[in-house]
Amino acid sequence: MKTILLLTTGGTIASAPGPDGLAPQLSGDDLLALLPGLEKICQPQPLELLELDSTNVGPCHWQAMAQAVWSARGKCDGIVISHGTDTMAYTAAALQLMLENIDLPVVLTGAQLPIEHPETDGKRNLLDAFLAAATGPNGVYLAFDGKIISGEAAYKQRTVGFDAFVSVNLPLAGNVEQGQIKWEANPSPCGEARLLDKLELQVGLLKLTPTSSEKELDFYAEQGWKALVVEGFGAGGVPERLLPALARVAEKMPVVLCSQCRYDGVNLGVYDVGHQAARSGVLSGGLRTAEAWVVRLMWALGNDMPLE
Amino acid sequence: MKTILLLTTGGTIASAPGPDGLAPQLSGDDLLALLPGLEKICQPQPLELLELDSTNVGPCHWQAMAQAVWSARGKCDGIVISHGTDTMAYTAAALQLMLENIDLPVVLTGAQLPIEHPETDGKRNLLDAFLAAATGPNGVYLAFDGKIISGEAAYKQRTVGFDAFVSVNLPLAGNVEQGQIKWEANPSPCGEARLLDKLELQVGLLKLTPTSSEKELDFYAEQGWKALVVEGFGAGGVPERLLPALARVAEKMPVVLCSQCRYDGVNLGVYDVGHQAARSGVLSGGLRTAEAWVVRLMWALGNDMPLE
Repeated sequence: MKTILLLTTGGTIASAPGPDGLAPQLSGDDLLALLPGLEKICQPQPLELLELDSTNVGPCHWQAMAQAVWSARGKCDGIVISHGTDTMAYTAAALQLMLENIDLPVVLTGAQLPIEHPETDGKRNLLDAFLAAATGPNGVYLAFDGKIISGEAAYKQRTVGFDAFVSVNLPLAGNVEQGQIKWEANPSPCGEARLLDKLELQVGLLKLTPTSSEKELDFYAEQGWKALVVEGFGAGGVPERLLPALARVAEKMPVVLCSQCRYDGVNLGVYDVGHQAARSGVLSGGLRTAEAWVVRLMWALGNDMPLE
Repeated sequence: MKTILLLTTGGTIASAPGPDGLAPQLSGDDLLALLPGLEKICQPQPLELLELDSTNVGPCHWQAMAQAVWSARGKCDGIVISHGTDTMAYTAAALQLMLENIDLPVVLTGAQLPIEHPETDGKRNLLDAFLAAATGPNGVYLAFDGKIISGEAAYKQRTVGFDAFVSVNLPLAGNVEQGQIKWEANPSPCGEARLLDKLELQVGLLKLTPTSSEKELDFYAEQGWKALVVEGFGAGGVPERLLPALARVAEKMPVVLCSQCRYDGVNLGVYDVGHQAARSGVLSGGLRTAEAWVVRLMWALGNDMPLE
């Protein structure tokens, strides 16, 4: 029987009603006590790390989680992290990068309704995550509503519905079918595991609108930022009137151009407006989301790693 | 037989390969000549207004389109606007507001592949748009890939696939089925038509990430912006460390809090973090997208109209 660590960090799944709405309150033991049948999957071991609504989870918490995973290597066979849904996709992307070639499965999960709610999705999601951690390939995944999603590809698309996460521009890593996980071909990382947990915090994100101004780009060029992700239009369009300011930012720091369209990614080679953006010195975000690029730039600059 | 005006503005649909990739080149007559069977739907009348990649379409072009539609009232039975896909959702939202209670159907459309491409979706989309303009209720719609979407609810989700637009948090206005449009119950506006075409340009959009800083919010508070849309997390979460800066912006201008989750909208009454954001003085974006709110704030402030 495999030993699976449950790192708890808070989130809706562990929340209960308080004076001002839902806030995290349940312990790891509380969560485990609500999972009948878990003893058939693994031997769970709770470890309380944080107690946060994931709106308040940020880079220092990613570091705490990465370090806790790193410390647990050799002492367990896999790790489940219970986490709020709001920023779980950011955390999943960060852990995938910070735990390079990690040599056990790390599976994030959470819920849209508290685990004590009669209609909760939390029990199912947690059980799926334990199953994934006990049976899956090494790497960082997010388990939600029967989907197993690779860390950097996750996006939270819904604020209410159970089908809250999608895998963007990458096939699912696995599907839960009749109590089993059907893993897709997904080569495990094969280099040596490394903890690369430094993060550059001064990474900005600017989502363009038809009324975006050069002032906004100049703000990022001039106020100490170290990298910028720009969410442009379509396959990677930036309005002509913004190109001089875009070039000013790109002279000073890496600028990655992503799309505000959720699917199909950026291709700067198709349209005249894409060619013009590329000439301003920006890098194409390709198939990665803007969210994943923010995290990747934080990680790459923090650890002196290449962007790809 | 109804007379339908075709206002052309450029876009992929009217594009052809140039030295630097695709750029708009085809005239309205060129487009109409490629639509066999159109004579059975309506009598089309082309009017060339713009020749732009929609990445470069902005507020002054929305005004030109709104004014062209306004001038055409009484001279035609409906209007089709051919438009690039990149910012078509923004234009659709803007025209729906600027052409208040418009008394004919105005239908935007475009394509993912140029109309002269052998696999183009442009012919189908244009024919559907003419059908919608000839048979539909009054109002502003976007026709794409068999869907008829209400102006303010449209979002471009794909940079390549034909299924490029979705209706966010609002049922489709209609579906194309076997060459007919099945309109859903969709009460036409019933007040007097008005052209409300002024726009405030100083409306910002800040999409939060786990590393967003107070500096960014203060930039919007201090640099002459008139309104701000914040894309928060989940159902409307803003990290605690940003709340003081958020309150500083909200003291100076309307701040609307939307979600970076595409579906299900914002509800500040569920979580503690939502209550806290509401106490900072922000308005809930409800079910509208951040993109629609940027346009709505531009319009409301420009025309001295209420936000809802």
